[in-house]
Amino acid sequence: MGTSKGTIISYQGEPGAFSEQAVLAYFGKHCIARARETFDEVFDDVVRKRSHYSIIPIENSLFGSVHQNYDLLQRRPVFIVGEIKLRIRMNLLALPGVRMGDIRHVYSHPQGLGQCQDFIRSLPGCTPHPFYDTAGAAKMIQEEQRRDAGAIASSQAAAHYGLKILRKSVESDHHNFTRFVVLARKPVQPRRNAKTSIIFATKNIPGALYKSLSVFALRNINMLKIESRPIVGRPWEYLFFVDIKTDNRTPECRNALAHLEELASYSKNLGSYETGRSVLNP
Amino acid sequence: MGTSKGTIISYQGEPGAFSEQAVLAYFGKHCIARARETFDEVFDDVVRKRSHYSIIPIENSLFGSVHQNYDLLQRRPVFIVGEIKLRIRMNLLALPGVRMGDIRHVYSHPQGLGQCQDFIRSLPGCTPHPFYDTAGAAKMIQEEQRRDAGAIASSQAAAHYGLKILRKSVESDHHNFTRFVVLARKPVQPRRNAKTSIIFATKNIPGALYKSLSVFALRNINMLKIESRPIVGRPWEYLFFVDIKTDNRTPECRNALAHLEELASYSKNLGSYETGRSVLNP
Repeated sequence: MGTSKGTIISYQGEPGAFSEQAVLAYFGKHCIARARETFDEVFDDVVRKRSHYSIIPIENSLFGSVHQNYDLLQRRPVFIVGEIKLRIRMNLLALPGVRMGDIRHVYSHPQGLGQCQDFIRSLPGCTPHPFYDTAGAAKMIQEEQRRDAGAIASSQAAAHYGLKILRKSVESDHHNFTRFVVLARKPVQPRRNAKTSIIFATKNIPGALYKSLSVFALRNINMLKIESRPIVGRPWEYLFFVDIKTDNRTPECRNALAHLEELASYSKNLGSYETGRSVLNP
Repeated sequence: MGTSKGTIISYQGEPGAFSEQAVLAYFGKHCIARARETFDEVFDDVVRKRSHYSIIPIENSLFGSVHQNYDLLQRRPVFIVGEIKLRIRMNLLALPGVRMGDIRHVYSHPQGLGQCQDFIRSLPGCTPHPFYDTAGAAKMIQEEQRRDAGAIASSQAAAHYGLKILRKSVESDHHNFTRFVVLARKPVQPRRNAKTSIIFATKNIPGALYKSLSVFALRNINMLKIESRPIVGRPWEYLFFVDIKTDNRTPECRNALAHLEELASYSKNLGSYETGRSVLNP
């Protein structure tokens, strides 16, 4: 994306978080990355024009979708305008001078601990502790000067909090990518490799989901992903989030979406955007 | 379920956890409920014949699916043999003598905090703290004799840890149910209201999911739920978990499953079982 100097992008987490890396990889180093505590604030920054864009993790290739963000995409007046897939590399960080044998406690986000559980089990007498954030764990080690503990976090978190990388790439599975999407107040017109994200609820009729998906299948529009989320207040009814490989300016996509409106009790078009490239974090 | 005395059922959590309530509601008070720390252990107890059954939460009507359990259902040699839906009632618990105005900190599982966020915000100067377990938060308040803090947990947790219910039903949305399933080593033959759970992966062909769902739709078999989970090591490919309203002994279901095997690259039948009733926890 052509980013002018001074473009402000909000993300959730501490400086050094993987979301900050996604901001830098997508917008380049001249943008202003704004750290927020919660995903609510990250969405609000775009809605209330405090930021030009926001970037949110939507799915990890090992752990699945970030459900809170699916729910916020439905409730807030935002569009998806871009995508990037970040290869997640986890490292064991510690204070300078601390050695492998000193580590008795490992702190990270529960997903960080899960992704590195084989490595953690290989450390004798070491206990994993869930923490609210990977970069937050690195920050705590520095602030409390913990010489008996390590954090599992990004290399940027090491640099940011003055920690040393004790062991690089400690994740069990190296096919570990997180897909982020870029949010804005207005939709864009992608130049190439378009995909489109749609939310809908089905009417209470037999074969409702099958019929809804037929609007795409009958027009040879390829579905990339389907995700279901419960509808609050209506137990065991669901919203469906679907990504399709098409641009919503094409006639077949416009027809499919009109057809979907006939069949669905609710639908929302989150916009078309360019399919994201995969980048390796340093 | 007719439960003989001495039937052992494993669940995850501390005594007083909602999973323990599901065990008692399903199997009655004469069974032996065995508390385990992790879902892995709960599955292993059934597989290694240490328990007759296990019970696991699979979906909450506000927060969605418990993904770790979907993944374990795929990997472990177990069948689903029953289901129960428990209405979740959250309460603010504290030590006897502690008053509402004394509460500065509230501890609970992140989902417990999320379900009661309106209530927590209404308490002036009160900070929420995520804890590993709702009943575990109640246990901590008792063990550390915290007079400045409350736990959000079940009424059973209050009774179990000698706490008082300061405020009943503090959840924001009362349509709050958790669906649990019962696991065993062998499948059962349900007597009535059967449903069947299936896992499959699609071949890499256009319209693959749509075609897979057609095996049910074309035979008027109603689909109750679809859930997608990432396939580890194959980024952006998915396993689908489908619940259908039929018994797998019927000809149409047997034909649908044979048809699915033609179309899918992988499939696993988790078995048929009686649709669970909804129960209100006390």
